Amino acid sequence: MDKNKFAVTPPMGWNSYDYYDTTVTETDVRANAEYMAKKLKKYGWEYVVIDIEWYCNEAGTKRDRFQYIPFEDVVMDEYSRLQPSPVRFPSSAGGKGFKPLADYIHSLGLKFGIHIMRGIPRNAAHRHMKVLGTDALASDIADPSSICGWNPDMYGVRHNSDGQAYYDSIIEMYADWGVDFIKCDDICDSWLYPHPGFSGWEETRMLRRAIDKSRREIVLSLSPGPAHVDNAFHYTSNANMWRITDDFWDRWDLLKNMFRRCEQWQNHVREGCWPDCDMLPIGKLGKGHGHEWYSNFTDDELKTMMTLWCVFRSPLMIGTDLPQLDKKTLKLLTNEDVLEMLRDGRGVEIRRNDDEAVWTSVGGSSIKLALFNLSDSEREISLKRCEFFEDGRTNDTHFELDYSSVKELWGEENCKVTDTSVSAIVPPHGVRVYSFKRKLKVQKFI
Amino acid sequence: MDKNKFAVTPPMGWNSYDYYDTTVTETDVRANAEYMAKKLKKYGWEYVVIDIEWYCNEAGTKRDRFQYIPFEDVVMDEYSRLQPSPVRFPSSAGGKGFKPLADYIHSLGLKFGIHIMRGIPRNAAHRHMKVLGTDALASDIADPSSICGWNPDMYGVRHNSDGQAYYDSIIEMYADWGVDFIKCDDICDSWLYPHPGFSGWEETRMLRRAIDKSRREIVLSLSPGPAHVDNAFHYTSNANMWRITDDFWDRWDLLKNMFRRCEQWQNHVREGCWPDCDMLPIGKLGKGHGHEWYSNFTDDELKTMMTLWCVFRSPLMIGTDLPQLDKKTLKLLTNEDVLEMLRDGRGVEIRRNDDEAVWTSVGGSSIKLALFNLSDSEREISLKRCEFFEDGRTNDTHFELDYSSVKELWGEENCKVTDTSVSAIVPPHGVRVYSFKRKLKVQKFI
Amino acid sequence: MDKNKFAVTPPMGWNSYDYYDTTVTETDVRANAEYMAKKLKKYGWEYVVIDIEWYCNEAGTKRDRFQYIPFEDVVMDEYSRLQPSPVRFPSSAGGKGFKPLADYIHSLGLKFGIHIMRGIPRNAAHRHMKVLGTDALASDIADPSSICGWNPDMYGVRHNSDGQAYYDSIIEMYADWGVDFIKCDDICDSWLYPHPGFSGWEETRMLRRAIDKSRREIVLSLSPGPAHVDNAFHYTSNANMWRITDDFWDRWDLLKNMFRRCEQWQNHVREGCWPDCDMLPIGKLGKGHGHEWYSNFTDDELKTMMTLWCVFRSPLMIGTDLPQLDKKTLKLLTNEDVLEMLRDGRGVEIRRNDDEAVWTSVGGSSIKLALFNLSDSEREISLKRCEFFEDGRTNDTHFELDYSSVKELWGEENCKVTDTSVSAIVPPHGVRVYSFKRKLKVQKFI
Amino acid sequence: MDKNKFAVTPPMGWNSYDYYDTTVTETDVRANAEYMAKKLKKYGWEYVVIDIEWYCNEAGTKRDRFQYIPFEDVVMDEYSRLQPSPVRFPSSAGGKGFKPLADYIHSLGLKFGIHIMRGIPRNAAHRHMKVLGTDALASDIADPSSICGWNPDMYGVRHNSDGQAYYDSIIEMYADWGVDFIKCDDICDSWLYPHPGFSGWEETRMLRRAIDKSRREIVLSLSPGPAHVDNAFHYTSNANMWRITDDFWDRWDLLKNMFRRCEQWQNHVREGCWPDCDMLPIGKLGKGHGHEWYSNFTDDELKTMMTLWCVFRSPLMIGTDLPQLDKKTLKLLTNEDVLEMLRDGRGVEIRRNDDEAVWTSVGGSSIKLALFNLSDSEREISLKRCEFFEDGRTNDTHFELDYSSVKELWGEENCKVTDTSVSAIVPPHGVRVYSFKRKLKVQKFI
Repeated sequence: MDKNKFAVTPPMGWNSYDYYDTTVTETDVRANAEYMAKKLKKYGWEYVVIDIEWYCNEAGTKRDRFQYIPFEDVVMDEYSRLQPSPVRFPSSAGGKGFKPLADYIHSLGLKFGIHIMRGIPRNAAHRHMKVLGTDALASDIADPSSICGWNPDMYGVRHNSDGQAYYDSIIEMYADWGVDFIKCDDICDSWLYPHPGFSGWEETRMLRRAIDKSRREIVLSLSPGPAHVDNAFHYTSNANMWRITDDFWDRWDLLKNMFRRCEQWQNHVREGCWPDCDMLPIGKLGKGHGHEWYSNFTDDELKTMMTLWCVFRSPLMIGTDLPQLDKKTLKLLTNEDVLEMLRDGRGVEIRRNDDEAVWTSVGGSSIKLALFNLSDSEREISLKRCEFFEDGRTNDTHFELDYSSVKELWGEENCKVTDTSVSAIVPPHGVRVYSFKRKLKVQKFI
Repeated sequence: MDKNKFAVTPPMGWNSYDYYDTTVTETDVRANAEYMAKKLKKYGWEYVVIDIEWYCNEAGTKRDRFQYIPFEDVVMDEYSRLQPSPVRFPSSAGGKGFKPLADYIHSLGLKFGIHIMRGIPRNAAHRHMKVLGTDALASDIADPSSICGWNPDMYGVRHNSDGQAYYDSIIEMYADWGVDFIKCDDICDSWLYPHPGFSGWEETRMLRRAIDKSRREIVLSLSPGPAHVDNAFHYTSNANMWRITDDFWDRWDLLKNMFRRCEQWQNHVREGCWPDCDMLPIGKLGKGHGHEWYSNFTDDELKTMMTLWCVFRSPLMIGTDLPQLDKKTLKLLTNEDVLEMLRDGRGVEIRRNDDEAVWTSVGGSSIKLALFNLSDSEREISLKRCEFFEDGRTNDTHFELDYSSVKELWGEENCKVTDTSVSAIVPPHGVRVYSFKRKLKVQKFI
Repeated sequence: MDKNKFAVTPPMGWNSYDYYDTTVTETDVRANAEYMAKKLKKYGWEYVVIDIEWYCNEAGTKRDRFQYIPFEDVVMDEYSRLQPSPVRFPSSAGGKGFKPLADYIHSLGLKFGIHIMRGIPRNAAHRHMKVLGTDALASDIADPSSICGWNPDMYGVRHNSDGQAYYDSIIEMYADWGVDFIKCDDICDSWLYPHPGFSGWEETRMLRRAIDKSRREIVLSLSPGPAHVDNAFHYTSNANMWRITDDFWDRWDLLKNMFRRCEQWQNHVREGCWPDCDMLPIGKLGKGHGHEWYSNFTDDELKTMMTLWCVFRSPLMIGTDLPQLDKKTLKLLTNEDVLEMLRDGRGVEIRRNDDEAVWTSVGGSSIKLALFNLSDSEREISLKRCEFFEDGRTNDTHFELDYSSVKELWGEENCKVTDTSVSAIVPPHGVRVYSFKRKLKVQKFI
Repeated sequence: MDKNKFAVTPPMGWNSYDYYDTTVTETDVRANAEYMAKKLKKYGWEYVVIDIEWYCNEAGTKRDRFQYIPFEDVVMDEYSRLQPSPVRFPSSAGGKGFKPLADYIHSLGLKFGIHIMRGIPRNAAHRHMKVLGTDALASDIADPSSICGWNPDMYGVRHNSDGQAYYDSIIEMYADWGVDFIKCDDICDSWLYPHPGFSGWEETRMLRRAIDKSRREIVLSLSPGPAHVDNAFHYTSNANMWRITDDFWDRWDLLKNMFRRCEQWQNHVREGCWPDCDMLPIGKLGKGHGHEWYSNFTDDELKTMMTLWCVFRSPLMIGTDLPQLDKKTLKLLTNEDVLEMLRDGRGVEIRRNDDEAVWTSVGGSSIKLALFNLSDSEREISLKRCEFFEDGRTNDTHFELDYSSVKELWGEENCKVTDTSVSAIVPPHGVRVYSFKRKLKVQKFI
């Protein structure tokens, strides 16, 4: 089984966190899935992901003091494995787990994902509970020195055969439920532990082995970031996607900063290996976080974000509540031309400084050119033709561009094309994306 | 109540850790106390301190895998307060705590001390146990993100009135037992948490307040180090002693390194405030650590250590098992002349480089001069008379020295005194300490 | 010769930098000296210090581009020793150096100081010039890898006998001129070099030895900061004062921050050893820096600064142009009661948090209590009597305070004194300083 | 002009540093070039590179004290441009520069390279010399705060049009001389300056622009390392090769460490962009460094180094004196099968831990598999067939391997091939490289 075949293009879907935080219920999930099936599926959106603490009956009830309630009696089976809260996910009652909900999602032609924290429940360790497939107890495999710095639910799992048995036992259960996607948290980067002392490195490898054993093609997503590019080999060897940033929200400074991150990671994007810019904080947000608001991004910033995620080929996870989606945001998510870069392109940064960034995407029958204005005032961005096509960066000498075929992908005016350059006026924080048709220049036998 | 009156000279005593690790029993403690009363008390030795995990019945039984057994059922009362293991400390049975043992120690004319970990037992939090003096539960005041990086027993306590109530409740109990000395661990320095995120700073202040409220003069010792001299004001304001080093053992590199630490801390030594060089790893060591050995320090190194601790005025805590004490080591610990620097001196470093260090101690009717050879070969160490007395460093112009009265305190030959200098041949890693009588030069009204 | 006898109280004077930058002339210096002799001398002000680049004819002429003009032909004698610019200091013409000016300053009953950069002129090295007292050339003793990160004039001097000869030769010349005070720059801290690779450590020691050899009591001041308290022994062993901060200017955040620095350094203040809070940016400032302004400090902040410098016992160097001094600022500098703490006190911090700081100064016939309001709104600051006198911090049990004698030193209302506490309302960023008489309680023979 | 076309495969050549240090002469260079033309050229070796301080007449004459003599009178023309020492390179006399020597090297069918330090000679700045193409003087464009931490010759050049004029003027001169390769030093990484304060970043861009303007295809190599992978975009945009390591010498720890570096940089290897593992320290070494020795690498280590450099596609620069080359080393450098990976492969790391590393190289008509034993004892290394071919890592599904065609490239026994795995016994520090023929599986039109 080759994990790089699980996600041949960047996963697209919806995640409950940005809107619901820890409070999402089965009803909410179904409503979002139904919306996706009806309005978004045909554009490639397919994952429905339940984020953090689905195993807590009281999650969110002490929001004024805690995002995650300490020492809550999380729902577990006898083998120390977390189970959906039957209060919030009624179909899971009677030990059925997420199977009924997953079945429903699958019936809509979609895929089902869950969030997990690395490790084993602290309560299981303190109660000396059993672990499936081994005589060791939870207290034997839990590492009391390995905690998450911001969530109180788990202890890290020791790196040995009993620890592997635990990871095998949860992945097998998830596979039985029909899980297609796992977002594992507190495992990609740690602000608590220095690099060599962080048990998450080995836990990632145990998860990889467990999924390989399960024979189910479960996409593995690692969180939170920032992952460091020094460790790219670790991530590409073990996961399908990994966060290159800490939590991303609707602030321009975070969006501008993402350009640096994408520059650093661009050479590590390929089939089955997707550096992840995090969820799209669009539409309505924050209900479960204690106050609801509408995304602070301007229209130009939204297009800049969507374009960057697509040209870079980041996974796309929608953060809003889909049933409440407004027209403008729906349009943002269903721009076929822009999404084509995600599915079938190779993104390359051509230039970046404090004021502007230029990316190109080569793929299919066209080449796209994205001109980003990172400054706070309107500016003309121009580049020489040779900078984005003829040079070695595109590694492609078999085609030539048809400059007369140019089209702006967000419906704006076209760029100005001369014999030697391409240029456009771009609004502050905005973007213009131009598509040029490729014409076959010469055929070559490989 | 002024905490600086609790320990007007550096505390001197015995600590169970270096020899017994987590395994010390009531029998062992009594034997050591009895030895101290008989042979050491008259030299000023008085504290008998039980180190880590006296509340664990099974401490030390899995020494091949763990120094501290994870998730063990620590002994607690109903108010989340740790109690002595009745298996190891029989006199504590029936909820009597350490009172009977403390009474016995007091009856010998000695003082009684215990080790604690900062925080509240993890088990108390996971079991939602009560806290004396408040309606809050252990799970309300335990901070699940605040752990010790190397011991699995406790969670940090939140900084609020309920948290203070918990600290008040344990200190009150310790006062009832008759505790005279508390060595609190995982609180002086943290390798896990960055400075501003470490809850130990506030927990130190809660301990201070709790002791002040208790009206019992309990000496507060903070561990482990290295404390950083940047934070000296915090330590001097709240504690009686604090470790300026990580665990100290019988290795020359650690001993040589202590000279740098003492140089940095010398200006912060005063009544009630004692930077702590850690226990003396002498005689037999390590039985509870899994293998017993005799201190690796050479005779010269032992004298160097003892001299440095005394001239600097570090607390003195003996690490060996006293009943097994050999003659040589006993002599080391009972050198009245050397101990005089500890009780009644003011230590000042005069010089230090990679090869040698020179300290002077002013006090009483004499001035001491310690010449340390930090190099690996014999060397002559000399200094000008003006360097150690007449200059401003000693802040003392009322006296003059009687150079004819010189005496070497370890029984070695005297130094060579000329009109302008003092010098001696010192063996590698060794020390020579000379005492000169002070004669009143001029009387001055202050 | 004992360098701790050179400056038995913190040096007080005027420095040309804050107002003149690199442009000060002989006329300016004389005018400031004359003002000092007439109006300030009787309060203890005595040093007149010429700051950076007195050896540059064109200093300040390219202020729009450079503070320090690169590769300027600095004035030197044949032995690679910098000489005053005869253009700016006419009395130095004919190789007389600063002697005539120093003589004049001395004739006013004042002392004369100069600023130097550590090292030897780069031009001297590139021109292979001579060094007095050795056959080595400037190019032999200059270390081309040791530069100042912000001033282009010098190379560090190698640590060997030829390098010592160079330092001897300049100090001898300064002694001949009649220099009483040297502020050596780029030597206290380095932001360019990591600690162990910084040649300034050894250059400090070479300066020390050169001054000792010169037999002239030249006060040695090290700049810039922040000096780190870890290295206190180095500073106290070699210098009379050293900067504990980077350049200090008239901004509240810098002033508030100084409280932390003074807390850290308070135990290292003693005769001949003065941690330095930097110059007082008061009155008119900045003419030589390209734009003149009046100090941004409010009246309350000015008193806070003056009080902190005095209670901590920092050297006091006035930054403004004295002939232009206004009445209010003159009064600030001539408050005898406040200056008494500088001359004859021992400052101890009693409390500090983000909102307030409390210091006490014990000395002479009174004890002072300074209540600082570090917050942005008015607040009542109170403390228990025992906190500032009876406790061990003052190390003084021979006296008792006469609370009826209280006096506020800046002319404000007195504090409220009860049986157990002292309190006052203090304006934001302001201070109240109370003086209590000490009455002899018991006489004791030491 | 596209810099990525200058070096379509990794440059191969000889560099004078490892053997001659600063002392190489024209005679030595000619002898090495002649050897290369005769014995190595046919294998692809072509660059002859003169390393550091060819502009110093006395380089190497004070080797006991300095590697680089401070303040030496470097040879310059009137425009502040360094010239070859006519003493060491007689053909350069009369202002002819390296043209005659370059012509000779070209006549042998080889290419000519030189080392430069970033910046402008310090002496030029201190003497206010001219700069070609601008009225500014050397003292105007030299930045006195930008030095090299280990070589005393230069100051960094300011980033402005006058600074660019200087870089244009030297590159134009090098182009006139016929220089094909420039190794610029003190520009890739700086241990002296923190990242944002390092003028080398802009100096790299100035060099790039100067080369582009010159219209000569001069390969640009940046030194020293380690370059950090965070900045990969900077290096790939401006240079042809850049050092990913500090100086590499013949020590196993440095060689083993290179595996981690190659893992991190593997995704940044492509036409015109070559992360550089540094010179090959083989054969005789060190004559100019003060003592001559024969490479400490064992035969196995030599093959490991050569294989890693080739499979990763590092530039190859020979460090020894070629006329003294022994048979074994010659053979190492002329293994056509191994060199094929360098010229026409795409290297991918498959696995790495402390004990072993496995790389594969895809290209041409075969796939190579390199099994490295990084441990200190013999070990069997095996991997599943799917790990090195069928998986997504090779991005190549058009071919299948002919396992019967296997061949070990260093003449050792073949590996053991089963239906599912490949394995071999590899000596400590050694390598086995197997080549498998690729057979076209399916043709695909792009």
